[in-house]
Amino acid sequence: MKKARRWSGFVVEVGRELQIDVFGFKVRRSQRHHHPDNQAFIPLMLEAVRIGPTSKIQTDKRPMVPHLITALTGPINELEQRILDSMPAIERWFRMEWMEHTPPFYSSVDIRNAGFKLAPVDTNLYPGGWNNLTPEMLPLAVQAAMAAIEKICPEARNLLLIPENHTRNTFYLSNVAQLARIFNMAGLNVRIGSINPEIKEDTVIDLPNGESVKLEPVIRSKTRLGLKDFDPCTILLNNDLSAGIPGILEDLHEQYLLPPLHAGWCVRRKSQHFANYEEVSKRFGKLLGIDPWLINPMFSHCGEVNFAEGTGMECLTTNVDMLLTKIRRKYKEFGIHEKPFVIVKADNGTYGMGIMTVRSVADLEALNRKTRNKMSVVKDGQEVNQVIIQEGVLTNERINDAVAEPVVYMMDRYVVGGFYRVHAERGVDENLNAPGSSFVPLAFEQSAHTPQPGAKAGVSLPNRFYMYGVIARLAMLAASYEIEQTDPNAEVYE
Amino acid sequence: MKKARRWSGFVVEVGRELQIDVFGFKVRRSQRHHHPDNQAFIPLMLEAVRIGPTSKIQTDKRPMVPHLITALTGPINELEQRILDSMPAIERWFRMEWMEHTPPFYSSVDIRNAGFKLAPVDTNLYPGGWNNLTPEMLPLAVQAAMAAIEKICPEARNLLLIPENHTRNTFYLSNVAQLARIFNMAGLNVRIGSINPEIKEDTVIDLPNGESVKLEPVIRSKTRLGLKDFDPCTILLNNDLSAGIPGILEDLHEQYLLPPLHAGWCVRRKSQHFANYEEVSKRFGKLLGIDPWLINPMFSHCGEVNFAEGTGMECLTTNVDMLLTKIRRKYKEFGIHEKPFVIVKADNGTYGMGIMTVRSVADLEALNRKTRNKMSVVKDGQEVNQVIIQEGVLTNERINDAVAEPVVYMMDRYVVGGFYRVHAERGVDENLNAPGSSFVPLAFEQSAHTPQPGAKAGVSLPNRFYMYGVIARLAMLAASYEIEQTDPNAEVYE
Repeated sequence: MKKARRWSGFVVEVGRELQIDVFGFKVRRSQRHHHPDNQAFIPLMLEAVRIGPTSKIQTDKRPMVPHLITALTGPINELEQRILDSMPAIERWFRMEWMEHTPPFYSSVDIRNAGFKLAPVDTNLYPGGWNNLTPEMLPLAVQAAMAAIEKICPEARNLLLIPENHTRNTFYLSNVAQLARIFNMAGLNVRIGSINPEIKEDTVIDLPNGESVKLEPVIRSKTRLGLKDFDPCTILLNNDLSAGIPGILEDLHEQYLLPPLHAGWCVRRKSQHFANYEEVSKRFGKLLGIDPWLINPMFSHCGEVNFAEGTGMECLTTNVDMLLTKIRRKYKEFGIHEKPFVIVKADNGTYGMGIMTVRSVADLEALNRKTRNKMSVVKDGQEVNQVIIQEGVLTNERINDAVAEPVVYMMDRYVVGGFYRVHAERGVDENLNAPGSSFVPLAFEQSAHTPQPGAKAGVSLPNRFYMYGVIARLAMLAASYEIEQTDPNAEVYE
Repeated sequence: MKKARRWSGFVVEVGRELQIDVFGFKVRRSQRHHHPDNQAFIPLMLEAVRIGPTSKIQTDKRPMVPHLITALTGPINELEQRILDSMPAIERWFRMEWMEHTPPFYSSVDIRNAGFKLAPVDTNLYPGGWNNLTPEMLPLAVQAAMAAIEKICPEARNLLLIPENHTRNTFYLSNVAQLARIFNMAGLNVRIGSINPEIKEDTVIDLPNGESVKLEPVIRSKTRLGLKDFDPCTILLNNDLSAGIPGILEDLHEQYLLPPLHAGWCVRRKSQHFANYEEVSKRFGKLLGIDPWLINPMFSHCGEVNFAEGTGMECLTTNVDMLLTKIRRKYKEFGIHEKPFVIVKADNGTYGMGIMTVRSVADLEALNRKTRNKMSVVKDGQEVNQVIIQEGVLTNERINDAVAEPVVYMMDRYVVGGFYRVHAERGVDENLNAPGSSFVPLAFEQSAHTPQPGAKAGVSLPNRFYMYGVIARLAMLAASYEIEQTDPNAEVYE
């Protein structure tokens, strides 16, 4: 039995194993989904898997970037249509939020698009990787940086940029050079000050692109931090403070310190971020008339886990089991035929460390010593004892055959660009922020700001990117709530 | 006698008639310029004239746009280097200015680059031509529009756009459609309300690009202006009010009216704008250590001229003569061997109407009836009686063989794009804003915000565009002073 049906401009056949041709890519639809509450919405939530490029695309042997445009124009998404239809309302909602709350100075958000669900999975308040943005995105970043500086410290002349203590990671240092460029173009004298005790004198490091970056040792006076012959009024941290707040950064009351110290991973907890995100997604879901689960990854939290010694594992097992059950229920409600999984992460972890995919409670029992050790320590040797157990969100975006997830960059309240993190050796349910990953710039410059209201759902990349920009901003908003909650000086201002 | 000399990376021979090859274009330098005060500066101020493309360029028969990149990378300019070297200081200077003054909501500035001098010649506070900006510039315009709305009316939901009364000029209406798109993407419901009495019902007009635009008749209540079923909190004028302030726009105290009514040409005077610009250029000249004349067109003003009846011509003759003498003196001081000329314009004129080039007092005596009539009336039939006599600034930029002048677009305090106005049938000393002109988008998107500090002077288009953006912002700043001075409610707020 077959009947033809027009969906957003594509003729789709309803049956057991379907193929939809989208921009030259065949997309398989294995089941018809059904939602009890919202008939109109659910038929579009395909479990769509790209099963291979058509011959026309396959003959094109150019590198990844040209493939991007078509490769990711896959599953149709009603959420996209809703978001697009509500654009003015959404933008106004954000404007009103930013009247009450201060956006993080800068941020990046990792997003996963499962086709049936779209959610942020990590929000970074000291984003690296600015060097992955295309040159076309630079003017947007500069303009947003200008706006941020105007609001916070218009009289600023000198900016001291404090990077991570890596001195050999030229990829990271290329990011530092790019940040210095952005803030220089926004109208500041920028110099880079290292708080790495090994940097005792000016150190020039050559970068892969032929540029170089100069790290200078910081000089601390009683009340100020600076460099030789450089007294900045503003200090920008690109160091996530995983190892704790170094004394050299404390009590700098005369200078603007951006972001504030309590935005560092020594204070932040993923569980607190996602609790705030849940709040935000509920309110946003109401605005759009959607189940917030469609954009919110469920989670729970264990406070005392020691992977190396194997203590606290009961809490973990219980919570993994509970969360898997909740996901299974949601999948059933939405007619999604996927195997649920959860991600167990260090609650204060960064850099993609201390992360594992758990598909059943049995996985936890089978943990080997290597995985236990890997889970027990994160960046800068910090021990893991609190973990977040988060609903796993498949990523069904791919570039060539590699699994891809979008990363959205923001400066102040503005989306300024993004790229795809791509990992050829990882699965759709695994963490991609791991050695072996690569980066493909998004054409975000024509994108997050310039949706195409007339275009059909799912076929316009600008619309796709606009949607990613909205979700990323929801996560940014959650981060701003979080930073307010953890502000040690909050009462001083009230 | 010839000696080789390296100038900013080009080997230049010093002699009487020289040729410099710049990006495939031959540039002639007929004299060596000499400045008594500033030896280092003046040698670079070439009277550079493109005398023809090299064969490599001539073989390229593609349309104008691809030519742009090379065609305009002409004369080397020390001013560009100074501006670039001072970038952080300049940006800080603007930041401090915008703490004290409010930028116009949006604006465009016509600029002329004579090679030895760079100056704004017109500042529009109701800019049309947004449709000339490339799609790449759209995100910047949207981001800047977001910033502007956030500051002025964050709670805004609906925006009523009021265009000029043209109903048949589909080129102008394409601009209106583009503005509507920008503000929609910035998060507002935008509708277009006509104050043209001929528009009595909804009127849909097809545009050349296949889109259409709907003009709706405005509905005025005692205190508010709106459309049927549309009550906007914000009204954006794209109508320069040359014909005076229509009663329908008066006393709208409950709604935001942007820009304010006194920014219209019924109140504005070019002479007041350029008096403010002179002030701005003096302070900016001090910041940069340059003679402000390099960026400031001198001017004078006559209050009672009637071209049709031939009265008030003595004032005009005297002022033209005086100004030509002043220009001659400056040319001599800077060693510039050009023939001075002035532009006589209606002090309240727009749309390129009521403008003539005067090269000597004899030109004025020889005015024929046709020119007199042309000079006596400007847009919307307004009579000319005040004129501004402005130092003429050559434009030495060309695209193919046509004379070109850059037009820079700003939204709030941000440069968001620009294009070249091109006129094949006009000379280097004539007004280009006339029938027959065309438009070539600038690659401003990689430009005004992203100068290339390492690049040599005169060879980097981004640096050239950054310089144009700086000059345009100086003119915008002058306009903000001007609007403060003419604000009828100024005292209320003090």
